[in-house]
Amino acid sequence: LRVRAVVAYDGSRFRGFWPNAGVRTVGGVLAEAIARVVGEPVELSCAGRTDTGVHASGQVISFDAPAGADLARLRKALNSMLGPEVAVRQVDEADPQFDARFAAKTRAYRYTVLNRPEPDPFLAATAWHISDPLDLRALKAGADPLIGEHDFSSFCRRPKVVDGSPGGSLTRRVLDAGWVDLGDGLLRFDIEATSFCHQMVRSIVGAVVECGRGTRTPADVMALLRAKDRAGAPTPAPPHGLNLWHVTY
Amino acid sequence: LRVRAVVAYDGSRFRGFWPNAGVRTVGGVLAEAIARVVGEPVELSCAGRTDTGVHASGQVISFDAPAGADLARLRKALNSMLGPEVAVRQVDEADPQFDARFAAKTRAYRYTVLNRPEPDPFLAATAWHISDPLDLRALKAGADPLIGEHDFSSFCRRPKVVDGSPGGSLTRRVLDAGWVDLGDGLLRFDIEATSFCHQMVRSIVGAVVECGRGTRTPADVMALLRAKDRAGAPTPAPPHGLNLWHVTY
Repeated sequence: LRVRAVVAYDGSRFRGFWPNAGVRTVGGVLAEAIARVVGEPVELSCAGRTDTGVHASGQVISFDAPAGADLARLRKALNSMLGPEVAVRQVDEADPQFDARFAAKTRAYRYTVLNRPEPDPFLAATAWHISDPLDLRALKAGADPLIGEHDFSSFCRRPKVVDGSPGGSLTRRVLDAGWVDLGDGLLRFDIEATSFCHQMVRSIVGAVVECGRGTRTPADVMALLRAKDRAGAPTPAPPHGLNLWHVTY
Repeated sequence: LRVRAVVAYDGSRFRGFWPNAGVRTVGGVLAEAIARVVGEPVELSCAGRTDTGVHASGQVISFDAPAGADLARLRKALNSMLGPEVAVRQVDEADPQFDARFAAKTRAYRYTVLNRPEPDPFLAATAWHISDPLDLRALKAGADPLIGEHDFSSFCRRPKVVDGSPGGSLTRRVLDAGWVDLGDGLLRFDIEATSFCHQMVRSIVGAVVECGRGTRTPADVMALLRAKDRAGAPTPAPPHGLNLWHVTY
C-alpha cells in the first residue's frame, strides 16, 4: 500500500530532514515512528530534503505500508507520538507508482524576515530578524532576475554531486519569486520552482537581502547568476527563516 | 525621570512577571538589565502580573531612570541584552506621576486555542491544542454572561489576599469578551476588563471551553459566577495560550 503524507515540522531541533545514522533528523524520527505503528521498517521518499534548522508546513513524503493498514489510525498515532514538533496533516493512499520526490512538479518555499529595530519573541524561531532598514523595492528588483530557467551554480553551495555522482546539472526553472510587505516589519519572500539545488533559497535570500541593504545591486545578482560559479556565492540567509511551504504534483 | 515602556515576551521559560528572589522572572531580568544600563537599581511597576508561562505582547512597565538618561539608547541596549525572548517595543518619558499599574484603565488579554485533530508545530508555544471539536456558538454563549460588573470569586484561584491583606474585593468590570474563528482550527478569545484577579482569564477560558465541549452549559457558567465560591472553580486553561495583549491608560 503506497502512502502519501503531508507533514509540518519545526526544524529547530533537527539536523535536517534526510535520515542519517547517529543524528536526529525529521525523516529519521518519522520513519521510526511509522515503523513502530505499522510493524515493519519503512523507507521514506520526500519532496524536499530540508537542511538543519529549516522548517516545513507542507513537506510531502511517501512510503509503503502493509496492505490493509488503517491510515486514519496511523495519522492519529503519529501525531500523538511526534506532535507538536512534527505534525502529520494528511495521510492518504496514493497511486502505487507515486513517489513524493520524483512525482513532484513544483516546490514552493517561504522565507520570513522581520525588519524592525526590536525583535519579536513569537517570531524568534521562524523569522530572520534584521534591524537595519531594508528597501522593499530593491528586494523585489534583486529577486526579479532569478525568475526563469537558469544555471544556479552560483547559488548552490555544494559541489555538483547529484545522487552520488558529480556533474549533475544545476539548471532549475524558477516559476515565481517575490516579496510581500505584511506590515509591522514583516517581509515575506515566496519562491516556487520545479526543484531547488542545495541551499539555493537561502543563498538567493542572502544575496537579495544585500540588495535590500544597498550593499549589492540587482545587476550584481544578475552578474552572479551568469558567473555560474560558487566562488562568488553570497552568504546564505539563516535556516530558521525558511519554510518548505507547498509541493504540487 | 519617570519612564514608561511597552514590553513583549515569550513567557515559556519565565516564572511569571513579578520579580521574586531566586527564580527567573520577566520583571527580574528587566530590572537587572535596566539597572545595568542606567547605572542604578530600579523598581518596576507593571500593568499585569502575568503568571508562569503566560506571554505578553503589550505589557506596560514604569520605573525611574536618572535625569538625562538616553531612552533610545536604553531601548536598544535592552533589546540586544534580552532579545528575542523579551522585546522592548517602546520606551518613552512619562508624566512624573505615571504608574503602569495604578494608571491603567483597562487590560486586554488574548487566549488562543487550536481546535483540530493535528497539532501545529509553529503554535505549540502560544496556543492550547484541543483535538475534540468545540462548538463555537457554545463558546460564545458561555462567555456572554461574564460581560459586565461581577464578583469573580469563583474564577479567582488564590484566597482573597490583595496587596498582602486578605479580604480585597474580587469585583471586576468586564467590558468585552468574545470568540473569533480565524479558520484552520484557530479560535481566539479576547477579553477586556478594568482589571483581573489572579488566574481569572485562564479560569474563564477553562469554564467556557467546557461549554464548547458540551460538558458545561452557559447556565452553569452563570450559576458558577453567582456562587462566588472558589470551590466550584473550573480547571484553568494552560498558561501558554494566554497573552497580555494591550493596556489602555
